[in-house]
Amino acid sequence: MRMPGRHFLQIPGPTNVPDRILRAMDMPTMDHRSPAFGALGLRVLAGMKTIFKCSGPVFIYPASGTGAWEAALVNTLSPGDAVLMYETGHFATLWRGLALRLGLEPEFLQGDWRTGVHPGAIEERLREDREHRIKAVCVVHNETSTGCTASIAEVRAAIDAAGHPALLMVDTISSLASIDFRQDEWGVDVTVGGSQKGLMLPPGLSFNAVSAKALAASRTARLPRSFWSWEEMLPANEKGFFPYTPATNLLYGLAEAIDMLHEEGLDAVFARHARHAEATRRAVAAWGLDVFCREPRNHSGSLTAVLMPEGHSADRFRRIVAETFNMSLGNGLSKIADRVFRIGHLGDFNDLMLAGTLSGVEMGLALAGVPHRRGGVQAALDHLAATAGAGDARKEAAE
Amino acid sequence: MRMPGRHFLQIPGPTNVPDRILRAMDMPTMDHRSPAFGALGLRVLAGMKTIFKCSGPVFIYPASGTGAWEAALVNTLSPGDAVLMYETGHFATLWRGLALRLGLEPEFLQGDWRTGVHPGAIEERLREDREHRIKAVCVVHNETSTGCTASIAEVRAAIDAAGHPALLMVDTISSLASIDFRQDEWGVDVTVGGSQKGLMLPPGLSFNAVSAKALAASRTARLPRSFWSWEEMLPANEKGFFPYTPATNLLYGLAEAIDMLHEEGLDAVFARHARHAEATRRAVAAWGLDVFCREPRNHSGSLTAVLMPEGHSADRFRRIVAETFNMSLGNGLSKIADRVFRIGHLGDFNDLMLAGTLSGVEMGLALAGVPHRRGGVQAALDHLAATAGAGDARKEAAE
Amino acid sequence: MRMPGRHFLQIPGPTNVPDRILRAMDMPTMDHRSPAFGALGLRVLAGMKTIFKCSGPVFIYPASGTGAWEAALVNTLSPGDAVLMYETGHFATLWRGLALRLGLEPEFLQGDWRTGVHPGAIEERLREDREHRIKAVCVVHNETSTGCTASIAEVRAAIDAAGHPALLMVDTISSLASIDFRQDEWGVDVTVGGSQKGLMLPPGLSFNAVSAKALAASRTARLPRSFWSWEEMLPANEKGFFPYTPATNLLYGLAEAIDMLHEEGLDAVFARHARHAEATRRAVAAWGLDVFCREPRNHSGSLTAVLMPEGHSADRFRRIVAETFNMSLGNGLSKIADRVFRIGHLGDFNDLMLAGTLSGVEMGLALAGVPHRRGGVQAALDHLAATAGAGDARKEAAE
Amino acid sequence: MRMPGRHFLQIPGPTNVPDRILRAMDMPTMDHRSPAFGALGLRVLAGMKTIFKCSGPVFIYPASGTGAWEAALVNTLSPGDAVLMYETGHFATLWRGLALRLGLEPEFLQGDWRTGVHPGAIEERLREDREHRIKAVCVVHNETSTGCTASIAEVRAAIDAAGHPALLMVDTISSLASIDFRQDEWGVDVTVGGSQKGLMLPPGLSFNAVSAKALAASRTARLPRSFWSWEEMLPANEKGFFPYTPATNLLYGLAEAIDMLHEEGLDAVFARHARHAEATRRAVAAWGLDVFCREPRNHSGSLTAVLMPEGHSADRFRRIVAETFNMSLGNGLSKIADRVFRIGHLGDFNDLMLAGTLSGVEMGLALAGVPHRRGGVQAALDHLAATAGAGDARKEAAE
Repeated sequence: MRMPGRHFLQIPGPTNVPDRILRAMDMPTMDHRSPAFGALGLRVLAGMKTIFKCSGPVFIYPASGTGAWEAALVNTLSPGDAVLMYETGHFATLWRGLALRLGLEPEFLQGDWRTGVHPGAIEERLREDREHRIKAVCVVHNETSTGCTASIAEVRAAIDAAGHPALLMVDTISSLASIDFRQDEWGVDVTVGGSQKGLMLPPGLSFNAVSAKALAASRTARLPRSFWSWEEMLPANEKGFFPYTPATNLLYGLAEAIDMLHEEGLDAVFARHARHAEATRRAVAAWGLDVFCREPRNHSGSLTAVLMPEGHSADRFRRIVAETFNMSLGNGLSKIADRVFRIGHLGDFNDLMLAGTLSGVEMGLALAGVPHRRGGVQAALDHLAATAGAGDARKEAAE
Repeated sequence: MRMPGRHFLQIPGPTNVPDRILRAMDMPTMDHRSPAFGALGLRVLAGMKTIFKCSGPVFIYPASGTGAWEAALVNTLSPGDAVLMYETGHFATLWRGLALRLGLEPEFLQGDWRTGVHPGAIEERLREDREHRIKAVCVVHNETSTGCTASIAEVRAAIDAAGHPALLMVDTISSLASIDFRQDEWGVDVTVGGSQKGLMLPPGLSFNAVSAKALAASRTARLPRSFWSWEEMLPANEKGFFPYTPATNLLYGLAEAIDMLHEEGLDAVFARHARHAEATRRAVAAWGLDVFCREPRNHSGSLTAVLMPEGHSADRFRRIVAETFNMSLGNGLSKIADRVFRIGHLGDFNDLMLAGTLSGVEMGLALAGVPHRRGGVQAALDHLAATAGAGDARKEAAE
Repeated sequence: MRMPGRHFLQIPGPTNVPDRILRAMDMPTMDHRSPAFGALGLRVLAGMKTIFKCSGPVFIYPASGTGAWEAALVNTLSPGDAVLMYETGHFATLWRGLALRLGLEPEFLQGDWRTGVHPGAIEERLREDREHRIKAVCVVHNETSTGCTASIAEVRAAIDAAGHPALLMVDTISSLASIDFRQDEWGVDVTVGGSQKGLMLPPGLSFNAVSAKALAASRTARLPRSFWSWEEMLPANEKGFFPYTPATNLLYGLAEAIDMLHEEGLDAVFARHARHAEATRRAVAAWGLDVFCREPRNHSGSLTAVLMPEGHSADRFRRIVAETFNMSLGNGLSKIADRVFRIGHLGDFNDLMLAGTLSGVEMGLALAGVPHRRGGVQAALDHLAATAGAGDARKEAAE
Repeated sequence: MRMPGRHFLQIPGPTNVPDRILRAMDMPTMDHRSPAFGALGLRVLAGMKTIFKCSGPVFIYPASGTGAWEAALVNTLSPGDAVLMYETGHFATLWRGLALRLGLEPEFLQGDWRTGVHPGAIEERLREDREHRIKAVCVVHNETSTGCTASIAEVRAAIDAAGHPALLMVDTISSLASIDFRQDEWGVDVTVGGSQKGLMLPPGLSFNAVSAKALAASRTARLPRSFWSWEEMLPANEKGFFPYTPATNLLYGLAEAIDMLHEEGLDAVFARHARHAEATRRAVAAWGLDVFCREPRNHSGSLTAVLMPEGHSADRFRRIVAETFNMSLGNGLSKIADRVFRIGHLGDFNDLMLAGTLSGVEMGLALAGVPHRRGGVQAALDHLAATAGAGDARKEAAE
């Protein structure tokens, strides 16, 4: 059965790819050893530094995001190395599993999933590690499974306060280009990013942004690596090339995405996401439901996870929404499976798309018989209208 | 300034073209004299009969809709012929102007724009025309400038009751494939249609669906014609070809559009439009505003024109909506310029797109300082949720 | 059966649409009354003046090329007006038929189809017309059915020499943006153009470029017109709008096409076409076949019609080429049906596409058993290689 | 400077992506956890078995081809394992380097790059390995750097003759869907494939087709792995899903590619490639140049590497071709850099594209002053015409 109208892809990524980007990618593949490709390569390699706000190299993998997790670890660490990871949710847990499989010894600081990272816990643990067995601290900036965002600046401060030399590795898969991030200023050593969220691209590219310290570490790291090896990448990247076949058409889209982000302005992008997140939370509150992330300071700008009332299935609700309203919402993962649903409000998104999204949630709650109050959409609209100065601001800026 | 997210194109056409159709058109142009083209031509010529519900020929012009108005007249009439036209609104008035310029003598049955066609007035006028000077009765099925729909079956009955031989010509530009229409059953002689509304295509194609009686009239009609000439078209069309270069890529899209309409089912398409129109009117009522079309029986399924409160500019409101919420609404035309705005809810459209659309209107009213009550979106959602059985129905049908 | 690889669309239009243009068109339709549309309209209206090389208005019709023929006549002439037309081939004959159907009185200067326009014949006929009954002289710049190009400058000189006030109307459907054309310099009053040849677009747009004299004539012309009326277009065009729904997506493509032509440079575009035409004729000569156009000075830069040896069917040959080599060649039209085939080498085309095209012809001649000598492709390659300085020139220009 | 016409991308991959595939990919990304995605996943996972001709699982990585090399090794081997690799050329050498970096002990059977694999050398070496220290034999089916194809059936026979239990791993990056390959019949244990050659897709997907024996080996293999882990993939794949975000839009294209290959028929695809390769070699011979691959039985159907006459730079020649004729040819890699150029004739390709390609080479040789005889294109055309029965065959088959 054909479902009319546009699909609302409101999972927290992949996000709605704008036509400009899809069309930029819908072009003949070019010779990846030609001068024209070199120019494209230099453009995107330099452009990504403006997104990560870093001065060191950015590595672009023709692989989806999980690959960049692996790349961060295998380039900097040796078999048996201890890494301190923080249990923010499902994706932090997956990253830990990956570290285990690679032969590392991850130590997992326990979290309850409903708050972000507690920098104090990290500081405390690092202080105990007098011999500096811990080689890296790994945190997820924005935990996609829970909608809690960590303060990376505070994590950095905690490491510094402990006087510990561990590398700081940050997953920005669902925050990059949606929530403020500053690789250099915050002293991040390896940042992991992906194409399919704030960058508004289909999945298939991932990134490592790398500090000088991490680069130095890679020279002695002994985990085996080849596809992910920074060392193999660096000389080719100097002229905009790659040591093996890159995902050329996605790179066309990446160049367009970087332009689009700067056309809007990164600060405007972050403000837009924060405003949509606030409107969403007001809707949730009006429905009488709970935002899964408990700490306001950790509320995510990219997505909002909503806790279902006891005894109601989030998955059944999501299925009704999908079949009735042609909208995909994110599911609860592992230990919160069927207990939460997640609303993605990131990427190429605007007020009316958010209004449509929240309308689908509100109507879905009714159809699924989930106890709630009407009026969530109204609450969101009230907030959006009250804060909609952007339009005029935009207009004046353009004049 | 880049405006993020999708544009909401909520004028009453052109409509939001679905990706499937855009992508079908985004293909190399083919030889319009090749066997493959002939197969395409036969497919769309036959397919359009299922949309007009007619057994006679459909002519496809590589020209936008106004051309098909001209084609209907020049193929069937002679200089100085009287035609009875009905003033339903701006587009009926334009059609009349076109008839005047072509050297016809249109008689214009006056209307107040806020109701549809009164068949009684047509019957009365035709009864007076004992010498049958009137050669054609021209009505607009769905007046795009006002959102009033005429009952074509009743117009047919009126002509029959008067025992008058005039041809019945109907403009379905903004009703075709959105509001029920039946060329044969309702005894329509020439139907005028366009690509850019319910057919979900970009503008550039238009149609004449033609009865045997109209075809007979064309043999003696003396208005000069060549590009629009049915006679030139007929022999070429027999094998799927055209007498001059067709708009090939739009025909690719047309074939896809016909398939999509039948995948959903024409009756489901009509029901969807009617349901969205009802939800929209409930929103308007909740805002305390007036739907421009006064007669419930004439309410349009494709669009809703809304009357602005005295002293408030519809155009300023529309500009604020466009600049703040990235949505285009239709303007008031000629005598109702700046007095109404029009919400298009036709074409490839669904509940959440409508919710986003109405949210943009409600927030725009607030930002523009237009007196209204909040709650229009809520009223629409209540109706949509209450009538959303479609989802389950769809699911069961698919099983 | 799927035929692998790209189709070679080597009819003399529609031409191979470049990806950049297809993708520019593959975008959501916009509101044709929005400020963004107005900007687009102004851009293409101004841009087309640089293509026609004219200072007067250019009218853009959402209709394929035949419509612009009709527009040229109905805007400037009155019922019964005499027009002098020149029988250059099938398309000149079609234009004449159109004039007849519109109620004009075309006088047809006979030609043998194998040479271009003889300006002397025009001058002679105009001198005889002492009462100036002839209101317009209509010539086809590049006759698409024969591959003969007329010298419009000489036609202008002939009219001037005769001291005759007739309007000069020129069809540039298959020459515009392929063969040098200069509306103002050559004193052309109405130029007819289309989108699907040198402009590299799909069919669906056509043009009238209009002199002040033609515009003045339109004020008194009495042929009925509405869709084609310049008068209706002018006020709307001033701000980039159109009096009825334009073919928006084709206009996106037109803007891109104009940019691409200027990126290459119009003179470079003309030189490229002339060089490909010369290479094609060398191939034809090497095969021992005859180019249909007999006069070297009339040889077309856009296409080459080739005469088949007596007793051999051009259509059978073309069918074999299509089925074996996935290439469409142009057919012979009306009185030369099955006697010639036409090779289109216009639009977005390069040396290797031409080499592939001529290879398909040479192999097709062999497969069809048409008497010929091998070596045509070789002759073409020799010419292309000998004149391929363009590459270096391009490189140096870019440095 | 804009270069008109289509670019000829005649490197041996990435290949010219057909419009059907580009457009299939140019669609909104879908929820990779939705039922619709699961259906797509099952379709491509099953479809790829028909391409590899295997009954065991195929793993699809959202990563370019080099990743699948790594995947084959890390899933089946343990640190320090000996692997027997065969030096067929640059890519075999790269694979060996990758094995070294992963901590394996590759033994490299020396080759001269100008012939394919000698199965006898493999058999001999395996017979010597009485303790079965060698855990895998790795060969490149079609060495992309040289244009030599190995007989995998003979390699299998050699292993069997030696009675050796080593796994057989085969790189089919530039042969899959271009040159006959049969995973099951030839007893291959792990086949490595990529998207950007015979599968006609952009780069970004790669494959492992896996035998039961390899799957068993993976259970005890001790190289660290996570992203590439088959074990992680298997349970998710059962329902068409993936353990982490897949390259969704490339999967849309893959589904289309599989359909297109079967529409043409795999045997027809292989025959087409072989015929184009033969025509190319005839051109090379006519030019008086040498095909780099010396053994006719090893001649590749996907590409032809051509040896430059002593003292002439292949790279200068390729640059002239690129700048003059808008065609990319493949370069010589590592020890044959600047000594050979490579003509890719694989993927979505047809006779006229090949004719254009060879014409570009022949004209480029002239422009670059490379000693050669004219007539290579002619020789190729003679072969193509003589073997072009396909057209009629196709036609009859369709009737």
